[in-house]
Amino acid sequence: MVLSIKLGIVGVGYLSSCLLHGLSLARRGKDVWTCLSNPIRNEIQVPLSDIELKLAFEIDRSKIGKTVGQVARGYYPSLPANDYDDVEIQRGVCLEADHVVKEVSSIWDDMDRGETEEYLRSRVEGLDVLLICSTTEPNQPLTSSKVYAMYALQEGVSVINGIPTKIAGDEEYDYLARKNKAVLFGNDFASGATPLTHDILAHLAQHARIPLNIAQWQYASNTDFKSLSESRARGDAKKESKSRIIEAVFPGMDIPSYIGIQYIPPTVDGDPHAKGIPILDPDTKRLYLNIMYRTFAGTTNFLTVTAEISDSPSACVLAADLIRLVPVAKEKKDYVPIEPNAFYFKSPPRIFPSRIESFNRLLEWLRS
Amino acid sequence: MVLSIKLGIVGVGYLSSCLLHGLSLARRGKDVWTCLSNPIRNEIQVPLSDIELKLAFEIDRSKIGKTVGQVARGYYPSLPANDYDDVEIQRGVCLEADHVVKEVSSIWDDMDRGETEEYLRSRVEGLDVLLICSTTEPNQPLTSSKVYAMYALQEGVSVINGIPTKIAGDEEYDYLARKNKAVLFGNDFASGATPLTHDILAHLAQHARIPLNIAQWQYASNTDFKSLSESRARGDAKKESKSRIIEAVFPGMDIPSYIGIQYIPPTVDGDPHAKGIPILDPDTKRLYLNIMYRTFAGTTNFLTVTAEISDSPSACVLAADLIRLVPVAKEKKDYVPIEPNAFYFKSPPRIFPSRIESFNRLLEWLRS
Amino acid sequence: MVLSIKLGIVGVGYLSSCLLHGLSLARRGKDVWTCLSNPIRNEIQVPLSDIELKLAFEIDRSKIGKTVGQVARGYYPSLPANDYDDVEIQRGVCLEADHVVKEVSSIWDDMDRGETEEYLRSRVEGLDVLLICSTTEPNQPLTSSKVYAMYALQEGVSVINGIPTKIAGDEEYDYLARKNKAVLFGNDFASGATPLTHDILAHLAQHARIPLNIAQWQYASNTDFKSLSESRARGDAKKESKSRIIEAVFPGMDIPSYIGIQYIPPTVDGDPHAKGIPILDPDTKRLYLNIMYRTFAGTTNFLTVTAEISDSPSACVLAADLIRLVPVAKEKKDYVPIEPNAFYFKSPPRIFPSRIESFNRLLEWLRS
Amino acid sequence: MVLSIKLGIVGVGYLSSCLLHGLSLARRGKDVWTCLSNPIRNEIQVPLSDIELKLAFEIDRSKIGKTVGQVARGYYPSLPANDYDDVEIQRGVCLEADHVVKEVSSIWDDMDRGETEEYLRSRVEGLDVLLICSTTEPNQPLTSSKVYAMYALQEGVSVINGIPTKIAGDEEYDYLARKNKAVLFGNDFASGATPLTHDILAHLAQHARIPLNIAQWQYASNTDFKSLSESRARGDAKKESKSRIIEAVFPGMDIPSYIGIQYIPPTVDGDPHAKGIPILDPDTKRLYLNIMYRTFAGTTNFLTVTAEISDSPSACVLAADLIRLVPVAKEKKDYVPIEPNAFYFKSPPRIFPSRIESFNRLLEWLRS
Repeated sequence: MVLSIKLGIVGVGYLSSCLLHGLSLARRGKDVWTCLSNPIRNEIQVPLSDIELKLAFEIDRSKIGKTVGQVARGYYPSLPANDYDDVEIQRGVCLEADHVVKEVSSIWDDMDRGETEEYLRSRVEGLDVLLICSTTEPNQPLTSSKVYAMYALQEGVSVINGIPTKIAGDEEYDYLARKNKAVLFGNDFASGATPLTHDILAHLAQHARIPLNIAQWQYASNTDFKSLSESRARGDAKKESKSRIIEAVFPGMDIPSYIGIQYIPPTVDGDPHAKGIPILDPDTKRLYLNIMYRTFAGTTNFLTVTAEISDSPSACVLAADLIRLVPVAKEKKDYVPIEPNAFYFKSPPRIFPSRIESFNRLLEWLRS
Repeated sequence: MVLSIKLGIVGVGYLSSCLLHGLSLARRGKDVWTCLSNPIRNEIQVPLSDIELKLAFEIDRSKIGKTVGQVARGYYPSLPANDYDDVEIQRGVCLEADHVVKEVSSIWDDMDRGETEEYLRSRVEGLDVLLICSTTEPNQPLTSSKVYAMYALQEGVSVINGIPTKIAGDEEYDYLARKNKAVLFGNDFASGATPLTHDILAHLAQHARIPLNIAQWQYASNTDFKSLSESRARGDAKKESKSRIIEAVFPGMDIPSYIGIQYIPPTVDGDPHAKGIPILDPDTKRLYLNIMYRTFAGTTNFLTVTAEISDSPSACVLAADLIRLVPVAKEKKDYVPIEPNAFYFKSPPRIFPSRIESFNRLLEWLRS
Repeated sequence: MVLSIKLGIVGVGYLSSCLLHGLSLARRGKDVWTCLSNPIRNEIQVPLSDIELKLAFEIDRSKIGKTVGQVARGYYPSLPANDYDDVEIQRGVCLEADHVVKEVSSIWDDMDRGETEEYLRSRVEGLDVLLICSTTEPNQPLTSSKVYAMYALQEGVSVINGIPTKIAGDEEYDYLARKNKAVLFGNDFASGATPLTHDILAHLAQHARIPLNIAQWQYASNTDFKSLSESRARGDAKKESKSRIIEAVFPGMDIPSYIGIQYIPPTVDGDPHAKGIPILDPDTKRLYLNIMYRTFAGTTNFLTVTAEISDSPSACVLAADLIRLVPVAKEKKDYVPIEPNAFYFKSPPRIFPSRIESFNRLLEWLRS
Repeated sequence: MVLSIKLGIVGVGYLSSCLLHGLSLARRGKDVWTCLSNPIRNEIQVPLSDIELKLAFEIDRSKIGKTVGQVARGYYPSLPANDYDDVEIQRGVCLEADHVVKEVSSIWDDMDRGETEEYLRSRVEGLDVLLICSTTEPNQPLTSSKVYAMYALQEGVSVINGIPTKIAGDEEYDYLARKNKAVLFGNDFASGATPLTHDILAHLAQHARIPLNIAQWQYASNTDFKSLSESRARGDAKKESKSRIIEAVFPGMDIPSYIGIQYIPPTVDGDPHAKGIPILDPDTKRLYLNIMYRTFAGTTNFLTVTAEISDSPSACVLAADLIRLVPVAKEKKDYVPIEPNAFYFKSPPRIFPSRIESFNRLLEWLRS
């Protein structure tokens, strides 16, 4: 009997290309770590090789109609020829005005609501999971990711929402998930600086080191940083999803904190033979985090973290787990499960004071 | 009814002076944070003001005979006059050869074993807790701290061993503690870089970030760094107590790691009016920690921590909890308790994969 | 014969309080380092003790009418009682609309242009130097600092412009300086991150390390950071005065760079006895600088600087030199001298590729 | 007329492979930066493509007899096939006992002094330059590099000594150079942390920031770090060549400083298909530098640098200049020239207070 998880993706960029590249490596027997299946911990029985790509949506005119393989090899040149060449990228939906993509092509422009519904439902039908990994959206009532999520859930397709838009934890979508026996995971992959900051704050709290202020700055050359830097509305969405961790760790304390996000245009090679290829990976961000804190008898100390973090692999580590947790959650009939959401996402329905607590609860949930 | 915890200390240096300074602040109504009694968490019912200093041992000839207040004000000039002037520093015992103290005065030089026993037992008699916060000892069968611990436990005095010498977890001392209904806490306060590294490694492990190597370097101008830098035997003891955390977090993986400890002589003020006073606090160390790690699909990233950590306040945060946990453990009749030792010490009898797990277990132990 | 330099200051904040504190220390025989009179180099013959405060302007209603000593002791509590109590703070002029000072009191509100001129000229008359160390001004044609500079120069009073407003290098002001035989030094003290970045870039250039991008971020809790963060116009002024250094070091190369400035409100002590006193010095900023660079055969490396820099002492080091360079420049009849301006300021009339070159030229100028 | 510089190298490791790789790139028209021929500055007329490899010595048995191309492609796999396959690696001389190379093969074992001289002189004869880029040697009277230098100079072959052994500045070798009209450049390429530290110290000195202490730590997985870590004698040599810069910048001040060098074994890929290939480039080191300093009115601040520096490209930038400066120095009849040595080396015959001054003097020397 052949078991497989049929996957659809929204957005063919760095994240999904990296995920597909990892799946390819796994199929070829290479080590590809994820949170729950690494040399140390082997909790999920479903192997990565059981995930099968079936569908991909995009709104970038230059990608639509190409195969996923063609586009993904642009991001990961080492992806073998022919991989994912059987999946043609479909035109998707875009409701946002201030988009960083140069030439947007959206079904919304040509179709009314009824046609859109039919177009999307007919395509997602038969999938097991729809993974939303498009760029951060502005904080507005209806967004593209919500449209995808609504029709997918109505078709009984589980949804993993990797971006900050509040879908999991929203009464309407939670209801849709439970009604249609589809799993809803979200929101906003806890993959970068936020979970690290959260764990460091938990460490400080447990050692009676009380932050006086927290300052964080990140920069990168990728599309997500471009949207966050340029569009105030999108940047604001990001800030909100981060301040909750301070309240979770130090409840009732007023600790000034600031998170700066800066886009720096990629440097391209001046060599005429390589023109246009960025010298530094745009997907890799640089992070600075400084925490001034006070401890016993009024002593003031600090802790500074500087790091280099590649966004997409960090998120794929989570996505690769979550896709395989969909059948697990279904078996438990737990359609918007507290524990996986608390560990894997920055804006889950419920947050625990410490992430390591979330992780331990996740393990308990898995084994229960 | 007046309740109080009668405290004896071994070593009147930065750590004990800082602790006494904090206790003074607490008695005057100031906020002095410890791990378990801060604005956020209020688990121990015993207030800090119930701790009363009764005895102090030293082997530095220049300190013996002075009051604890006189010596402590040298380290913390803001300690109010008269505080701790009622306790005269007693001559202690020193078995180590290569000591950084210039002029050692030890009862061992003049007394035989029987006299030593009588001298020490008669002095610790009636104490509730003996806190050992002398400098790191070489890795030899019998050390000064073991002598103090043995006679204290025999007198039913609980012992907190803040230094790396293995006392808690040693069958003989664990037996003495249980037999005499004295609590034994130890070894080596988990106050500096090690618990931070441990928590960061747990974070990385849970996010499928597998270290390729771990490099740490610390420097400071205090006595403890001097012993660790100069005496190979003492430095080795330190290294051993640190490598266990990598095995605890990444079992079975061979991750190269190195911990460097460097003593830098303190810079003293050239101003003739202030001669001899160090410009930088010798108790404050600088830390560098770099972790190169690998994650999804072969991506390599890194995380660098630079920090300033004042050793004594960081340890006092723990000591102030532990002293007040002695009556709690006694009530539970749990004389060498797994949970507090696992959280508060670097070389406890038992270590958990994640420190935050240790902390949660500690809370459960407290509330049980 | 008693020689002295009669000093007036515009703005009684951290910078001028720090300067006056240093002058007090110098008069009491303490070591107070400046660029050109330290243990290593002793180029200016005029001692710091020859500087005498005679006048101070402010536009903060809460400071006007108090003595300089009263206000300065608020910033530097260790300043001895009575110092600077003979100088009463005068009401100054404010032309800017969006000021961070809560209650502005400006002569501009009550006086017409003629009265203003008379008021200011009569007060600066007889001074040797007017030091402008108010907060950064918006980029508009006429600003408060220009008003002070104009009337001071007309009275033959030399002007040191510590803020970014372009005064030195502006034809009109240069002309006024030369005509009235007054020295004009400016603009914008090269005291913080910019000269450090400039020197590091020069180092990289000389070792064939070509930056791919430069990212810098600073934060602090002081008034200057508040104006720069909150007022776009003022922040813009800051950015312009920094990008010139990249062009100076790497002419003709397009290197993306970004400078972020973040204000974080000061954390005040929760202790009821100390209410309102900031725990961290608002004058001290934290700096992050990351430079990704390319070198031989396409190798990519990076250099990260994190630093703690106290703004006022860093600027005072320069101010204390410049005040004493006024008589030197006068003797040379060099009223808008290229060399000192190039070394001491971020926006001088002329900039050299390397600051160390500027320093060497300054020494030559001095000795010529 | 074909002009070329005939080059011999001692040691076929990372450094020489990187240099040869860069020369290959240059011959194929790619941008390869060096200090004096980059987009900004074009001082040396001799192009990189005029350098021609003619001879290579090694003492590693596994390399001797192979072509330089075969060995160099192990370090730089992108080096084109056939490049440098016309030069066979010759057996060299090794006088040192505690060598990190596993299997040493040295002519010293089989030949007496006379035979050695004949062997070496006959091989270097006809070269223009011998570049010594073997590993750091212990501080003993006669070393391998001295043997090479002596016979090369006697044959009129110019010598570039990239390692710390004192050759340039030693009376005997300076005399040999002048007598035989050969140029002598050395010692110890100023390519890594030392020149950066030197330039930062010069910056601090010029801004009246007086270091209280300087702490530096580096680690890497290459052979040079292995020798420095494991062999005390070699490590000591390194320390000596660094402390001179503090005295040069802050003469007469006693500033405690420490430089730690740590070897960490390379992590190799666990993947059975890639076994043995290091995941991290062993040639790339990580650097930590912390400077605590004091400035105006007793303020204490600090500056921390963390960096990633690839040793070989950093040194090649210098080597590529120096090889082409040999004919320039010859034309000037300046055989042990002060200026290039002062800029390019850590232990030159003469050191200037600031490196940027050295650089300016180098430019003057070139143009004179």
